[in-house]
Amino acid sequence: MKEFKIPEATVSRLSVYSRYLTEVEKQHIVSISSGEIAEGMGGTPAQVRKDLAYFGEFGTRGVGYNVKQLNQEIKNILGLSKKWNMILIGAGNLGSALSQYHGFRERGFEIKGIFDNDLNKVGLMLNGLPIYPINEMADYIEANGISIAIIAVPGDYAQDVADILVETPIKGILNFAPVVLTVPDEVEVRNVDLSVNLEVLSYNIENNLDTMPEEE
Amino acid sequence: MKEFKIPEATVSRLSVYSRYLTEVEKQHIVSISSGEIAEGMGGTPAQVRKDLAYFGEFGTRGVGYNVKQLNQEIKNILGLSKKWNMILIGAGNLGSALSQYHGFRERGFEIKGIFDNDLNKVGLMLNGLPIYPINEMADYIEANGISIAIIAVPGDYAQDVADILVETPIKGILNFAPVVLTVPDEVEVRNVDLSVNLEVLSYNIENNLDTMPEEE
Repeated sequence: MKEFKIPEATVSRLSVYSRYLTEVEKQHIVSISSGEIAEGMGGTPAQVRKDLAYFGEFGTRGVGYNVKQLNQEIKNILGLSKKWNMILIGAGNLGSALSQYHGFRERGFEIKGIFDNDLNKVGLMLNGLPIYPINEMADYIEANGISIAIIAVPGDYAQDVADILVETPIKGILNFAPVVLTVPDEVEVRNVDLSVNLEVLSYNIENNLDTMPEEE
Repeated sequence: MKEFKIPEATVSRLSVYSRYLTEVEKQHIVSISSGEIAEGMGGTPAQVRKDLAYFGEFGTRGVGYNVKQLNQEIKNILGLSKKWNMILIGAGNLGSALSQYHGFRERGFEIKGIFDNDLNKVGLMLNGLPIYPINEMADYIEANGISIAIIAVPGDYAQDVADILVETPIKGILNFAPVVLTVPDEVEVRNVDLSVNLEVLSYNIENNLDTMPEEE
């Protein structure tokens, strides 16, 4: 299934396509064209065709892709054929928002527990999840088969949290703190930098104005 | 400055490089090599060189890039040579986390006001920002030169909010709601889909395990 490496931008889009295919599956639609996927997702047909070329063997020219088969193949590629147990570190506003984010569980990612070093929060529940002290984090990861940690603590604490995590069997970190974490190669880190998203947006705004002045 | 179009992944990295260059500038360092940027950012030198090739005229082989000049050029490209006034729609947990996110203002993006349809919240302040009712949003955008809106409402309400926004002079939307928004071409939308980030992470974890079994 994973003999080849896919560009990161394509991996991101595959994730979006899979979400759309899951909706299409619910409508009992059997086959779909790359053009229909593009229309459903607001993308361009050329981009979709390029991304789906990784699954060329499943598509038939003039017929399209088998929805269920394509979705399953994408999920396999993305590592979604298994369940991922996660912990969340940081019970502040962002942690609270993340703990009630429905999109994670639907895709096989489940937050099992929350960790915080604020003793006023430890022992309480946040959106149905228990808040534990950070000094119990390593044992919890071992005992509960946790493979992904979401860091939602202030920037000043993020590396300290990462330093604890890398000594555990954790495999990946989704980092919301606005700092670059130093971790060993065997731990994957994905940074969610909200400013970067804004700057891509401002670039696109500027670019749109430049290339389509007739729409002004 | 903006004669060429840059791939989105490069635009994202330029944003990260610029943040790093800003830190380097503060240390009064005059020139920097692509390798030093790679080291500072945890990227590969080849990737950095490829991205910075868009600014080739500013780098000198063996000497490197003038830090201040390169950073200013990147900021111009990203549209950061101006200030961006923003509003935030949604005063829930996510909105609260976003309203206190320091990274925005440092880069020239300023949230001026928050909008919510919960009348228990309207009139209150959230992290020093006033909460207004959504029916005042269009007038506020006009009166305050707002060009970017951040949508942090539940998925069911996001399109309704977008429908109001597209009738205003708003130029871009940063959308945190897990839905695909339908907007006219002249409004740029950037979706921050938290599940997509997790799925790129799980792909990377799976891929790392496959390609580096000796590190297991």
